[in-house]
Amino acid sequence: MTPLTPIAPIALTMGEPAGIGAEIALKSWQMRSRRKLPTFFLIDDPDRLRALARKLKLDIPVKEIQSPEAADKTFDEALPVLAEPLVAKVKPGVPNVANAPCVMRSIERAVQFALEGRAGAVVTNPIHKATLHQGGFDFPGHTEFLGHLAGTKDAPVMMLASPELRVVLASVHLSLREATQNLTASAIEHVARVTNDALKRDFAIAQPRIWVAGLNPHAGEAGAMGSEEATIIAPAIARLKSEGLHIEGPKPPDTLFTKDARGHYDVALCMYHDQGLIPLKTIGFDQGVNITLGLSFVRTSPDHGTAFDIAGQGVARPDSLCTAILTAAQMHTARTANDESAAR
Amino acid sequence: MTPLTPIAPIALTMGEPAGIGAEIALKSWQMRSRRKLPTFFLIDDPDRLRALARKLKLDIPVKEIQSPEAADKTFDEALPVLAEPLVAKVKPGVPNVANAPCVMRSIERAVQFALEGRAGAVVTNPIHKATLHQGGFDFPGHTEFLGHLAGTKDAPVMMLASPELRVVLASVHLSLREATQNLTASAIEHVARVTNDALKRDFAIAQPRIWVAGLNPHAGEAGAMGSEEATIIAPAIARLKSEGLHIEGPKPPDTLFTKDARGHYDVALCMYHDQGLIPLKTIGFDQGVNITLGLSFVRTSPDHGTAFDIAGQGVARPDSLCTAILTAAQMHTARTANDESAAR
Repeated sequence: MTPLTPIAPIALTMGEPAGIGAEIALKSWQMRSRRKLPTFFLIDDPDRLRALARKLKLDIPVKEIQSPEAADKTFDEALPVLAEPLVAKVKPGVPNVANAPCVMRSIERAVQFALEGRAGAVVTNPIHKATLHQGGFDFPGHTEFLGHLAGTKDAPVMMLASPELRVVLASVHLSLREATQNLTASAIEHVARVTNDALKRDFAIAQPRIWVAGLNPHAGEAGAMGSEEATIIAPAIARLKSEGLHIEGPKPPDTLFTKDARGHYDVALCMYHDQGLIPLKTIGFDQGVNITLGLSFVRTSPDHGTAFDIAGQGVARPDSLCTAILTAAQMHTARTANDESAAR
Repeated sequence: MTPLTPIAPIALTMGEPAGIGAEIALKSWQMRSRRKLPTFFLIDDPDRLRALARKLKLDIPVKEIQSPEAADKTFDEALPVLAEPLVAKVKPGVPNVANAPCVMRSIERAVQFALEGRAGAVVTNPIHKATLHQGGFDFPGHTEFLGHLAGTKDAPVMMLASPELRVVLASVHLSLREATQNLTASAIEHVARVTNDALKRDFAIAQPRIWVAGLNPHAGEAGAMGSEEATIIAPAIARLKSEGLHIEGPKPPDTLFTKDARGHYDVALCMYHDQGLIPLKTIGFDQGVNITLGLSFVRTSPDHGTAFDIAGQGVARPDSLCTAILTAAQMHTARTANDESAAR
């Protein structure tokens, strides 16, 4: 593996303060040696973090820093925190719309640092969309907000990655009926191109191998069970091949994720949410991470929600957040090396 | 396990003679001790079986029998075969419509023996539908033909079972668009009832636990991504619960098949083909078997096709057919015990 030497520190957002974000951030800092984590800093309320550590009997020091540049020298002795004071007292499991602006500012500042090169990547803690929407947040979710802040022209692409499988999706949060009816060749092509570029630049895969799933059982069985393979998916693949992508399909969905098949590709391009998420979670997603491709900076997040049901109890596990931080650092390192080599 | 003592022999059909059926039947007989297989007999052409064994250098004797009752005493020394002579010479990998009537007769005779109680169950080798259709076969597939022969009133239900997971499907070979648009509460209820009865009668599960998948991502997330959970699936589950079934759902599809989740149910009722087949094959289906529920006799089949690409080469593996034979015998045994106990 490429050594993770001098890269800018990773900016970690607070996420919904009534969720488990602060707890897993504290615990991730505690795991920094065991998980070989790079320097990261949290944008959150230092006082509430100290109170939480005390309440959970976590012997984890918190140190306020004034700029990302101070994170490195703080990181060995304490969790570095850039102050984003909360307005309302946090009640675990009960989100308060009064704090919504602080949650959004934490994200905005992390992105700003990343755009300025002062943060190497953005790792986001889970937000609670309904509460943010009440607080004036005008985006379907994190990804769209980040795309907006980054001034990204095209839609970013969500990748879910575990050590055993990477998937990207032609559509994400649509009903199955809409996902089926709205499938387009241009969506497939966009996802494939963004994914191909990202696997090269951020994952140091010289020639990414993309396998594309069919939409229908047996990939339509030559039209016997659906025509989208012939009318939408195959033409998209043909165009992408002509652009030089190493892409194959449409493949029968049910045999695409066997251990044998997975050895043949770097990423599976899936036609709808559950086609990718079912195999990913069936195989096991403890070490899984959510990655946003197509932004001008690296962004990852743990693949779990705010977990209100266990917030404030001390039982939340930092594993997925640690993996998100580590993955972000690896991607940032690969991207830096790639961009330097391209500039030479 | 219930000892597999006196049960009627298992009837094995020839399937498409240009496929691997005869080869795996011969090899399954060879595995009879290692796999602890019960007595089975094949309905096929004895001469072509002997020629195939010679060609593949398989030292497997074939003995023609005149009735199923003769299978038991033959089974130790040779593969018992009830003669169904082929019309045309078999060319591996190239189906010949002239043999289609023989393929169909092999199935009809197996079913007849099962209906008469002279065979304990029917295990079917893979057929080639297009060739049979040319030969006048007027059914979408095996299952419908068997339902017709058995005089089954309601549609039989396909179950796929591996040691780790059993799934049944609200729809099978439909395009995803049709599967989504045609989903009905009555289809879900029919599949659940047939499955519940079969798990009790044929699998000796006193109180089967059925978990039902949602159709949409996150099971619709309270209507945010599709309404079928609320309008179709939940009402069906409520009715089934009121009938006494131990049934739960709709569950978010992507977390339904994790190792933890699988421990909570005996069967997953899936809304469409790939929702069930993706996790089943991702986990691994080497020991998988296809089971038809809701017939008046037990029927299983290996979960692979005719495999024309490897037919006649001696490389086909009998594992799935062995599992199908073993599963059929176990189901027949459980059913016999259940029916005897009910009659007392």
